This record gives sequence, C-alpha cells and structure tokens, in this order.
Amino acid sequence: MLNFEYYNPTKIQFGKEVCTRLGRTIQSMGCHKVILIGGGGSAKKNGAYEQVVTSLQNSKIEWIESWGVQANPEIEKVREMITLAKDFNADAVLALGGGSVIDSAKSVAAGVFVQDVWKLFLDLNPIEDALPIFTVLTISGTCSEMNSSAVVTNAETRQKWHIKGPALFPKVSFIDPIFQASLPWRQTVYGALDAMSHITEFYFVDERAETTLSINESLCNTIIKMVDRLKNDQEDYYSRASLAWASTLAFNGTSGAGLGAGDFALHGIEHAVSAVQPDVPHGAGMGVLFLAWATYCMDANPRLFDRWAKQIWGEDDARSGIEAMRARIRSWGSAVTLRELGVQEADIDEVAQIAASAKREGFVKRILLPDIQAILKMAL
Amino acid sequence: MLNFEYYNPTKIQFGKEVCTRLGRTIQSMGCHKVILIGGGGSAKKNGAYEQVVTSLQNSKIEWIESWGVQANPEIEKVREMITLAKDFNADAVLALGGGSVIDSAKSVAAGVFVQDVWKLFLDLNPIEDALPIFTVLTISGTCSEMNSSAVVTNAETRQKWHIKGPALFPKVSFIDPIFQASLPWRQTVYGALDAMSHITEFYFVDERAETTLSINESLCNTIIKMVDRLKNDQEDYYSRASLAWASTLAFNGTSGAGLGAGDFALHGIEHAVSAVQPDVPHGAGMGVLFLAWATYCMDANPRLFDRWAKQIWGEDDARSGIEAMRARIRSWGSAVTLRELGVQEADIDEVAQIAASAKREGFVKRILLPDIQAILKMAL
Repeated sequence: MLNFEYYNPTKIQFGKEVCTRLGRTIQSMGCHKVILIGGGGSAKKNGAYEQVVTSLQNSKIEWIESWGVQANPEIEKVREMITLAKDFNADAVLALGGGSVIDSAKSVAAGVFVQDVWKLFLDLNPIEDALPIFTVLTISGTCSEMNSSAVVTNAETRQKWHIKGPALFPKVSFIDPIFQASLPWRQTVYGALDAMSHITEFYFVDERAETTLSINESLCNTIIKMVDRLKNDQEDYYSRASLAWASTLAFNGTSGAGLGAGDFALHGIEHAVSAVQPDVPHGAGMGVLFLAWATYCMDANPRLFDRWAKQIWGEDDARSGIEAMRARIRSWGSAVTLRELGVQEADIDEVAQIAASAKREGFVKRILLPDIQAILKMAL
Repeated sequence: MLNFEYYNPTKIQFGKEVCTRLGRTIQSMGCHKVILIGGGGSAKKNGAYEQVVTSLQNSKIEWIESWGVQANPEIEKVREMITLAKDFNADAVLALGGGSVIDSAKSVAAGVFVQDVWKLFLDLNPIEDALPIFTVLTISGTCSEMNSSAVVTNAETRQKWHIKGPALFPKVSFIDPIFQASLPWRQTVYGALDAMSHITEFYFVDERAETTLSINESLCNTIIKMVDRLKNDQEDYYSRASLAWASTLAFNGTSGAGLGAGDFALHGIEHAVSAVQPDVPHGAGMGVLFLAWATYCMDANPRLFDRWAKQIWGEDDARSGIEAMRARIRSWGSAVTLRELGVQEADIDEVAQIAASAKREGFVKRILLPDIQAILKMAL
C-alpha cells in the first residue's frame, strides 16, 4: 500500500429527478449565464434536456447551446465552443451527456482563460483556472463526472492527450439513472467495460493495499451482476442505479487509493487502436485488449492475478479467470477479438508504433514495442 | 437505492511520514497561527507530536497548545479552548489525536464565531462558519477526520449532542498508520468495532443499494481480517494502513450512499449506556449492543440479515452470523455482554429511559421504550 493523496470535492446529486434542482444549484453558486454542451442529441429523447431546460428557466439562468460533440472529442470542436462561450460571456459550463461531452466541457471551461487551449494539453501543468463546471450524466463509464481530467483528440497531429487539475473537478454532477434506461444495449456494455478497465488499471499494482483491492473486487462484481440483470431488463431502475454509481466510484480516486499511479499501458494501446480505427468504441477496445494483456502479464504477479480470478470470476487460476471474462463479454454481445472491431493483422505494426510512441510503459510488467506487438497479436 | 447527495471535500494525505508536509499545507492555505489541540499525551510518545512541531517550525507557523481532551469530550473543555484560540488570534485549528480530539477541534473552530458554542448544538443549524480545520489522526475509528460532524457532551445537562455542516469538513487530514502501531490493543479493537458499527448502521436499510452494500461488505471483511492480523503483529504496517483507510471509508459518506439516513437507534442506546457508565468505551459498547439489536431485529428483514451473515461471516443464516461475530469479538478480547462493561440489571431502566428520550426510533425496526428494554436485557 503506497502513500496516497485522496481529494475529490465534486458534489454528486444522485437519483430520480435530481435535475429539477439544477437551476437552483447553479444559481446558488453565483452563476447566471451558462453554455450548455451536448452530444448527438439523445438527451432530447430521454427526457434529460427537457428537465434541464425547465430547471434553468425556473431559476432564470440564461444559456446558449452547442451540440454535436462526438465520441473521441476533437479540439477543433472545443475551440469553436470556446469562442461561443466567450461571445456569450458565459460564467459556467454545463455538460449534458457522457464522457466525451464532459471532457469537451472541461476543456472549454479551462480554454476560455488562455490563448490556445491545445497548449494546455501540451504543457500538462495542473489546471488551476476554469469556469465552474456542472454536469448532467446520461452515459456512465468514464467517470469524467467525478474526476479532474479530460481527454481530447487533435485530429491534425493525431494526438489523443489529456489535461488535469483541481479546477476541472465538476462543482456538482447530477446522475439520474433513468436517462440511461433508453441507451442502446451496446453502449451500456461499453460503459461497463470502460469502468471495469479503470478498476483493473489499478488492481494489479500492489497486493498490500487490501482495503482498495477488496473495494475494487466489490465494484467489479457489482458491475458484472448489474449488466447481467440489465440484459434481461434494460429499464430496471435499481440495476441502472447501481451500475451508474459503481462506474463513478471506479475512477474517482476510490479505486486507486494506495495503488500509486496505476498501470495505463493498455490505455495507450487502446488509444492507438482508435487512432487507426476511429470507430472502435473505447470500452469495447479495452475489453478485448485486457484479455490479451492479462494473459501476457499474469506471470508477473501470479498471486494477484489468481486472486482476481477467484474473487471476480470464481475461478482457481488466472487463465480460467480470463476465459470466464471472455465468455461473459461474449454473452453481452461485445467483441473479444480485434478483428471483430475491424482491426486487421496488417494494422498491427502501425498501431504498435503509435502506442509505443506514447511511452506508457506500464508498471505490472514493462511494456515496450515488442510487448505491444505480442499483445496485439494475441488480441487479433 | 434511495436518492442521495455525496459531498466530501476533505483532502487526505495518507501514508508514511505524510506529516512532514503539514506546515507547508497549512501555510499554502494562508494560515499562520494555529491552536493545536491534543488528548492525553500519547502523541508525544508515538512520534506524531515531534513530526508535527518540526513541520510547523519549518514553515514558520506559530502555535499554542491545549491538551487534555478526554474520551466523550466535554463542552466545558471546548469553551476553555475557544477562549485560548481567541486570545491567540488563531486562524486555524489543528487536531492531533483521535475522534474526541477532532470533535473538540471542530467545535472550537465553529465556536470562535459565536457567543455560546453550546447553542450550536441546541439549534442544529448547518455550520457554515468555522476556522479551517486540519487533523493528524492517531486513532482510527470515528472517521471524524473525513466527515462534517462532531459529538460533544454537556456534563451539566447530561446531553451528548452533535453539530454538523460543510464548514466542519477538515481541509486536510493526515493519516500516518505508523502512529497507531503503539496503541494499546484494546483501543485498536474499539476503533474497529466503532467503524464496523458505522457500516451496519447503514447496511440493513435497503437491499436495493447493491453497490453500497457490496462495498460495505468489503469494508467489514477488511476490518475483520486486519484486526485478526494485528492480533498476531500489532506493528504490521500494511494491516494498520488497511484498517485505518477502511475505518475512514466506513463513515465518510461512501458507506451510506443510497441508504438514506441510516438507522442510528443503537447509537442512541449506546450513548445512554455511556451516560450511566461513562467509562464504557464507545466501540466496545456498540459491539455488545449490536449483537442484541441484530438478534432483536433480524426478522424485520430476514433476507438482508441472512446476506450479512453469509457475506461477512460465511454463515447461512442471521443467527449463526451473530454467533460468529460474538465469537470473533471475544477472540479479540473485547466484551460481548453489558455486565462485562460494568452495567448491571439495576441500571437498565435508567439507561432505557435516557435512550428513549433521545427519540432515535430506528428505521430497520421501530425501537421504542419497551424495545430498548428488551435489547438491553438481551445484551446483559
């Protein structure tokens, strides 16, 4: 168990119809002019937009809207929204969507204070200045609603980089699980796989952090159980709610306490996959790659991989645990090979080169270019 | 799973020698004159005081000291310390100790802003104004280091009441498990039983809050496992560290998310016991009383009590789970009956009357005067 700092000042309002308090909350923090940032428009179908707008009106909050943030959000779109926010004199940013929307909103919130927002991503200094950020979550998975980082892609330079800092913690995030009842099934699964990947990125680092390991096992087991239940009834409120809250806890600091900086080698590989095949959903990619990474790394810490297999999958050894996970992902209808995601053998070298250039060399086992190639081949 | 708000802005610095950063931290928050509040003086033996004072000196923080806070801290002592703090023009409060010391420090931090500090306890309005609070934890159990409430006793009126509010969250709490290696064994056990009681005060409220129930099972299991390990080696750092962190998570909001306001009927009974027998350690009292309360209440929600027995104690039904817990507490050398704590049959009526007057009627099962009497008799 390594020394750690835990700090997370985001307030969560969780449950049915919590968004009716949104306007009052924004007002109570002294904000009056908001830029509302949205994605493809599903928030207009699931009831979220209506509740949000009514609440803003009731509290006499002025707002403008900017829609169209896509998965793997791009810096060009962020720049466009920063101009809008400045012209409107926005004094707060409101994200209405999932991780991509929230990450874009965070970038806008910080970007209004600087000349060139991408420079923040290049410099990687902690972000200390940003407009107050509020979020209404409509897809669980990334935990951007309760952490202080944001990932954005620069399409021109093919860099998918991040910013981080205390000013990027949302002031208040509203999580109403009902909005997620109408999600396409695959998005529920991708969100769950993303959350599970956040947990495993810390889990294998140190077996002495008993409290956090045990919590991480709980979170993983809860996520799996809830996805199984939702497969039978996607509108089951309590399963949605438990899945949403477990996904938030999976990357808000709780899952990493005492486990250092985690091991994000696999994240680097997945980002490289999506650089070459932009349509690969992040969660699906993480699921596929984890199976290969775990097979490749399990000998580096057999006791901990065996523990994972036993506590999460009820299996006696790591290899059986990995097979159980593969079967479960398949039962959820998600990919277990890169080929299913449209990645071919011919792509591997390019993906590996991009991944290696990110220099996320891992912690559980050191992962360099030949290792990345081996993992990608296993995942094919 | 009920709607909930989660908010906890306390920063935790956890691990070996984290207190060397104390002075710098206080300074970075613009504070320069600190009242240091301590207990019986064990902090001078376990190394905490020395580290704290060196760090304050290095950062040129001025301080005065006030020692002698006891278990079940009293408002008279708090008043005395408020006068000291005002005379010194303290701009921050530093608690060096366990729950009683931290609760006293919180009361001082709020008390300097009002005419009569006890009025805050009578009014129960959320505390919005207080000096910045810093804590150096030397006994885990109460979680006062990471929550926004404080319990203090008015000996004159025999009221053991609390205050609560956002200004009472410590700004930063420093948890170095090494300071706890020299605790008397019984205090380790009492702290663990206190932490376990915080978890069970939420656990039985709602079986639909799967994420939180599962985390609470993890926390309980971790606490039990760590106490077992410490019984063999009280200086084992990683067991101390895991126990300390699990105890903090047991009452910082995590264990109650989605479980409403919990069920604090038993807390009311324990406070009444300690009103009649002030020497009863809170954790020991909670352990004894829980065994009786669970036996009395298990039929109110058999499925959840059976789940608790299975997940925590590996037993098939609630009754066997309770017996397993009784055996475990005994194996740790702590009391399993009120008589062992010095409470006699003749005391029961008085204790029951005091407990009933607190009007904490419970949630899992409604607990009125006859129920309190029955529980106390079972616990004898």
